[in-house]
Amino acid sequence: MTFSALDSGVLGPLFTTTPMQACFADTARLDAMLQAEAALARAQAKLGLVPAALAPALTPRQWDLPSLGQATALAGVPAIPFVAAVQTTLPPELERAFHHGTTTQDIMDTALVLQMRDALVLIEDELRGVMAGLITLATAHRNTPCVGRTYGQHAAPVTFGFKCAVWLVGVADVLAALPALRVHVLVASLGGPVGMLRAGPALLDGFAAELGLGTTPLAWHALRGRMLEAGQWLAQLIGALAKLATDVVHLASTEVAEVNEPYVPGRGGSSAMPHKRNPVSCTVILAAQAAAGGFVATLQNAMPALHERPPGLWHAEWHALPALFGLAAGALREGRVLAEGLEVDPARMLQNIGRTNGLLFADAAAARLGQTMGREAAHEHVEAMAGEVRRSGRHLVDLLGPDAALAFDLGPAVAAAGPWVDRAVVYGRSLG
Amino acid sequence: MTFSALDSGVLGPLFTTTPMQACFADTARLDAMLQAEAALARAQAKLGLVPAALAPALTPRQWDLPSLGQATALAGVPAIPFVAAVQTTLPPELERAFHHGTTTQDIMDTALVLQMRDALVLIEDELRGVMAGLITLATAHRNTPCVGRTYGQHAAPVTFGFKCAVWLVGVADVLAALPALRVHVLVASLGGPVGMLRAGPALLDGFAAELGLGTTPLAWHALRGRMLEAGQWLAQLIGALAKLATDVVHLASTEVAEVNEPYVPGRGGSSAMPHKRNPVSCTVILAAQAAAGGFVATLQNAMPALHERPPGLWHAEWHALPALFGLAAGALREGRVLAEGLEVDPARMLQNIGRTNGLLFADAAAARLGQTMGREAAHEHVEAMAGEVRRSGRHLVDLLGPDAALAFDLGPAVAAAGPWVDRAVVYGRSLG
Amino acid sequence: MTFSALDSGVLGPLFTTTPMQACFADTARLDAMLQAEAALARAQAKLGLVPAALAPALTPRQWDLPSLGQATALAGVPAIPFVAAVQTTLPPELERAFHHGTTTQDIMDTALVLQMRDALVLIEDELRGVMAGLITLATAHRNTPCVGRTYGQHAAPVTFGFKCAVWLVGVADVLAALPALRVHVLVASLGGPVGMLRAGPALLDGFAAELGLGTTPLAWHALRGRMLEAGQWLAQLIGALAKLATDVVHLASTEVAEVNEPYVPGRGGSSAMPHKRNPVSCTVILAAQAAAGGFVATLQNAMPALHERPPGLWHAEWHALPALFGLAAGALREGRVLAEGLEVDPARMLQNIGRTNGLLFADAAAARLGQTMGREAAHEHVEAMAGEVRRSGRHLVDLLGPDAALAFDLGPAVAAAGPWVDRAVVYGRSLG
Amino acid sequence: MTFSALDSGVLGPLFTTTPMQACFADTARLDAMLQAEAALARAQAKLGLVPAALAPALTPRQWDLPSLGQATALAGVPAIPFVAAVQTTLPPELERAFHHGTTTQDIMDTALVLQMRDALVLIEDELRGVMAGLITLATAHRNTPCVGRTYGQHAAPVTFGFKCAVWLVGVADVLAALPALRVHVLVASLGGPVGMLRAGPALLDGFAAELGLGTTPLAWHALRGRMLEAGQWLAQLIGALAKLATDVVHLASTEVAEVNEPYVPGRGGSSAMPHKRNPVSCTVILAAQAAAGGFVATLQNAMPALHERPPGLWHAEWHALPALFGLAAGALREGRVLAEGLEVDPARMLQNIGRTNGLLFADAAAARLGQTMGREAAHEHVEAMAGEVRRSGRHLVDLLGPDAALAFDLGPAVAAAGPWVDRAVVYGRSLG
Repeated sequence: MTFSALDSGVLGPLFTTTPMQACFADTARLDAMLQAEAALARAQAKLGLVPAALAPALTPRQWDLPSLGQATALAGVPAIPFVAAVQTTLPPELERAFHHGTTTQDIMDTALVLQMRDALVLIEDELRGVMAGLITLATAHRNTPCVGRTYGQHAAPVTFGFKCAVWLVGVADVLAALPALRVHVLVASLGGPVGMLRAGPALLDGFAAELGLGTTPLAWHALRGRMLEAGQWLAQLIGALAKLATDVVHLASTEVAEVNEPYVPGRGGSSAMPHKRNPVSCTVILAAQAAAGGFVATLQNAMPALHERPPGLWHAEWHALPALFGLAAGALREGRVLAEGLEVDPARMLQNIGRTNGLLFADAAAARLGQTMGREAAHEHVEAMAGEVRRSGRHLVDLLGPDAALAFDLGPAVAAAGPWVDRAVVYGRSLG
Repeated sequence: MTFSALDSGVLGPLFTTTPMQACFADTARLDAMLQAEAALARAQAKLGLVPAALAPALTPRQWDLPSLGQATALAGVPAIPFVAAVQTTLPPELERAFHHGTTTQDIMDTALVLQMRDALVLIEDELRGVMAGLITLATAHRNTPCVGRTYGQHAAPVTFGFKCAVWLVGVADVLAALPALRVHVLVASLGGPVGMLRAGPALLDGFAAELGLGTTPLAWHALRGRMLEAGQWLAQLIGALAKLATDVVHLASTEVAEVNEPYVPGRGGSSAMPHKRNPVSCTVILAAQAAAGGFVATLQNAMPALHERPPGLWHAEWHALPALFGLAAGALREGRVLAEGLEVDPARMLQNIGRTNGLLFADAAAARLGQTMGREAAHEHVEAMAGEVRRSGRHLVDLLGPDAALAFDLGPAVAAAGPWVDRAVVYGRSLG
Repeated sequence: MTFSALDSGVLGPLFTTTPMQACFADTARLDAMLQAEAALARAQAKLGLVPAALAPALTPRQWDLPSLGQATALAGVPAIPFVAAVQTTLPPELERAFHHGTTTQDIMDTALVLQMRDALVLIEDELRGVMAGLITLATAHRNTPCVGRTYGQHAAPVTFGFKCAVWLVGVADVLAALPALRVHVLVASLGGPVGMLRAGPALLDGFAAELGLGTTPLAWHALRGRMLEAGQWLAQLIGALAKLATDVVHLASTEVAEVNEPYVPGRGGSSAMPHKRNPVSCTVILAAQAAAGGFVATLQNAMPALHERPPGLWHAEWHALPALFGLAAGALREGRVLAEGLEVDPARMLQNIGRTNGLLFADAAAARLGQTMGREAAHEHVEAMAGEVRRSGRHLVDLLGPDAALAFDLGPAVAAAGPWVDRAVVYGRSLG
Repeated sequence: MTFSALDSGVLGPLFTTTPMQACFADTARLDAMLQAEAALARAQAKLGLVPAALAPALTPRQWDLPSLGQATALAGVPAIPFVAAVQTTLPPELERAFHHGTTTQDIMDTALVLQMRDALVLIEDELRGVMAGLITLATAHRNTPCVGRTYGQHAAPVTFGFKCAVWLVGVADVLAALPALRVHVLVASLGGPVGMLRAGPALLDGFAAELGLGTTPLAWHALRGRMLEAGQWLAQLIGALAKLATDVVHLASTEVAEVNEPYVPGRGGSSAMPHKRNPVSCTVILAAQAAAGGFVATLQNAMPALHERPPGLWHAEWHALPALFGLAAGALREGRVLAEGLEVDPARMLQNIGRTNGLLFADAAAARLGQTMGREAAHEHVEAMAGEVRRSGRHLVDLLGPDAALAFDLGPAVAAAGPWVDRAVVYGRSLG
């Protein structure tokens, strides 16, 4: 069943990871629901609300998915068949106590949070891997000159380490926000039928403590901002990786050829073209980026939940939030492939710097000439000479004369880049 | 593996349908890819490009999904492992001819179109079912008075048949656009590695003819407007059903209670509240609506495909387009449940009409008084008296006096509604 | 010129606020750009990079918008005409120093941040106003019984104070995230042509200090996560208000009639229907919610910025981020109208509680009966009797008999609600 | 007031066009509303419902925007102040007849349709201009060899004319859908307060005829599919232009340098870098593309309109639909700049073809070798030799030997491209 490529047996392994699939498998969801029920039973038992024997009876089990599926299609929510399935395995005195005072949404939301907790561990591990890879790359190429490009055009020299540092700060910013995200979203939900848990805050706090989760002032049944926030964070993560992938696709393009995705035999080929080395890692990341914003829009749509539980909006999250985790996992795995294994060709970078007959130094030359000619006049003069370079193929330094000659030097760019790379690395390491 | 609720064994049966799941199953995709290869082989054989024996050798088979999945994760596209898997089953002379002159995207895009063709048959059937149900409902209640509501407030009388007619026109508009959609999207793709099929238009036309598909002026590898259009149409369909569901949720709400979703034992209950009859059909539809726009945004993002094949954007469609079919199928099934089985309570409708002590006729009363007082003055007078009705609980007719009394009559509303209902039904039937 | 309703002379005053319009006016943007240039001049002067006389020369001025507009259409970015316009007012020695070592994007991004800083002050003020209003409302109605509704159906009793507390927590969560948001987004941008500021970190830090802004490890020209985050936060804010508005629309609907938007003469009328009191505040908020997700999707699309400055993606932010501030301002103003002035009808709430012949207590009754019958059996029995209530119009208490009679009591619900309300109010006040 | 860059005095001229601004100006909207009222008056007069003198009295006028703005902010909809403003200018007997039997939404929706009709004329003109430019370009370069690129990598030779033909088909597909779009969306709206026009279909038909608009079976107050469809079409148009712009940005990038945006003095420069020629036209188009999907998502959100008129969803369209016209106008103007003026460098294209030491012909070579070696073996052999080319810098033809030598020929690609270009041009011309 593959409405989502992430769930496909054929495409899933490309677009997401096996551990993340395990996190969001049907059985993982059901296990997490049972785990939530068991924690509730323990917390209730401590308050004398249910027998102490209930929690131990809620042991892991095999789930009959087709039967649960059919029952869910009838009932309209999966918790009712789930409760019924568990109840049939309990002795009468425990059956009466099971699922006491709680409701579908408590169990499903908390189970989702438990899945998200596991998923965030996977995400963090990979994110740290990406960051470490980028720190190494930025450090290694701190002084490697490289073309800086704006609007797709050669602009002025940078270093490749500086480019890596930009990627690094992009993902580091996301990592830096993770602790706060965990505080916001790893929170238990327990409110009972209309959210106003009869047993009071003590039970919510006890339930949350059993699960190692945080709490909120009151049940978040109809407050979906935390789930939205989780999706927004994942989308920002995917976006940060997409910035990396966008640059790599261009740097790896045939004419530029400054980097390559790490070579893996059998990867990136074409069914038709035997010479192809397609950027597969970038493809996975950019597909995730193209899809991420839409899923967040779905979560935004889920915000205005009518009264104590809405018809449809809560359910819409199930069409979107797990998918964002799946996309993020795939994007991170491939981002790590890039961060850890990118093949870099400094010689080619130097060669590309030389391609434009000195135009890459036009900014520096104009600055130098501006000291005597005035800024605007120098800008106009260099602009005119740049046109001449394009027409004639002569080198800009020859056209501008000796006053500007010192501007045609990579030294200042390399010198300028260093402190920024260092600052980015310090930032990255501070999160480490 | 359930990043999408549509693919879940537990949630899938609620949110989509079994036939649509079959349409987009992994094996259906692979079967469709083989079907495309076989059609290509037939068309090529007719042009003498491959042996006539190739097509008959491309028989249905079992697919080793895990192995294809792992190979896809490595290769970066599923067509390469697919081609390899088929090739191992062919004798050398056919192996050389297989997949000749074509490329991954030809086969995958055409296979998707074949899946979409099947899916559109399912969609059309259900859509016609919804429409027929609404025609019946509109006709039956052509003269059933009912409150008209704007901004959630009682506005003026309508008939329930008129409301059904509005729903009917909403879905009929979508159905009316289906033939054009089919012409636009049920088109074969055949371009070879860079879209410029060497064998020329004759082969594309032959290939398309073998599959009963249309053609385009040239390969649509990098022209994704047709796939976007398919998604847009599905989203409009879901939106039309969501209009129906939005109204039904409110009409079925406890205080209004004018309609109910058809009663199905075991449906719409609550794990906590034994008296609940939740609107499950509406829930499924509204969840689809909340998600649909995001998926279309993904397809929009896939439009600017770089050169002859982009990194990532084409692949992003796989995260979105099948899901829209899945959502639409579930929404239609539930829409049909509503259209065919909605429980309507005309007595309650009449009762609700009477709830506001005549305010529902304020518009008519003002119009009547306006004939003598002037429109603006009448509007202001009735506005003031409406306030008095709210404060005092007196009936508006008593406050406005005999000049306005004739306005308090459902007859004109019922009379006005009829021709519109008829026009809508004629429109619906014209599509039949 | 009104492609956006927010910018319309007719519609703008309804959908946004005058102070927010002032924040994002063309002249405000140009003033902020000049302010950024002046700060840069001060910071550069301190480092001996430009004459000290430059900053004082960058005084406020009138802007020739049509001329700047035409020049921008030609140049492709507004900074070039802006720089030219300022330069013409400077003596030669300052003209040479002006805009030295910086680039278009530094000035425009920093100016946007300055506008956002002002805008966030407006937002925070209104948000605190909404929160204070909701604290008052929650406190006042802490013990006011009210119907709890799930899926649009009566579910179980709550208190109106509890509902207000839910709204309160929704907006308080957003307010709680504001300090971190400010740290993330109120950051200066200074990188020069390719982001790698030649003058080094000291100048960035000095520039930021002059403006009272924070800094980032390196220029965020091509790292748009912070701008995305600002948009995400605004969307979450709008979503939290939309939760409130969604509930109010339903509670204010004619059949429910438990609350009303505060009465303002001339507001909420209809050009046709003199009795109407349309929920205008909710309308503004819900329109903002419907649009917010799309704007965030645009910001998400702006993430994968190619190299040192992308063609088009940075510019796309200008189609989205200011609009989110405009929508938020309008939604907050109207949210405050609701929070501070909502008309609440406790008698009507009580009346609605009584509408379902005891079904609202079905959950409690089942719980009570479950103590003897077993939970599942009690659930089924009450479910059956609930059907009988619907058919016969008899009261559930009569059908269930004396064992369940004590369940038909609002006391427990009121008692249960109190601590949650208190917890929410404490949370809200902790942010004060 | 510039929450949208489209409405900015500084940025608007870059991102949209003056005629489109005129179409959606506040005064244009008010004029269109008055035009709708006048048409209604004429149609009503023909049926004897209002005095014949009414329509002639509804003459063009100056609008007091600030006063209408303040009144709208109070009333909640602009039609009420509009009606009041017009009424004050009418003698009593006409004042009573004015706006008779109609409602806010009739007038505003129909006015919007009138604006859209004008806007679609502008759109069509520019679209035809783009198409004509692309037909010329495709024809001129029908036989100009050029690199075909997939995943950003050199793939196989195509012709530049073929690339132009792809762009052409993309925009032609959109143009081909315009007549149907006009039929669907250029429809009058007339329903009165609750959509069920008392005067019956004859008045709707008469009203529509007065305006030269089509009709629908019944009022589309709460059926927003047509507005959604308009937005979807515009987004598809923008997407088709974005495909063109995406390709041009890459082709114009420094290392590729096969095309350039037409040279316009003063355009595409940088405030810092005097040599820059930034692709401004592409920037405008790609910014539109990044924003388009979000606006369509807003229109999708407007679909589930509650009952006879919803709170907020209708209004959300005003945040989105005009903006899509504004974006499309700007994107089309710049698309036409590209289509009509693109600077093409066939020599450079040939040079780039030669860059990879024959790898561009690997596909052809493998096909040739496959005839003897078997397809799979040939593919593997050429793949291995391609690696050797990359390592050694030797030419593929030397490594593959004489059997493959004939494959290294641009002739077949040029020959293959021709018929596709012709087919695309025929298609484009068929729409002319």
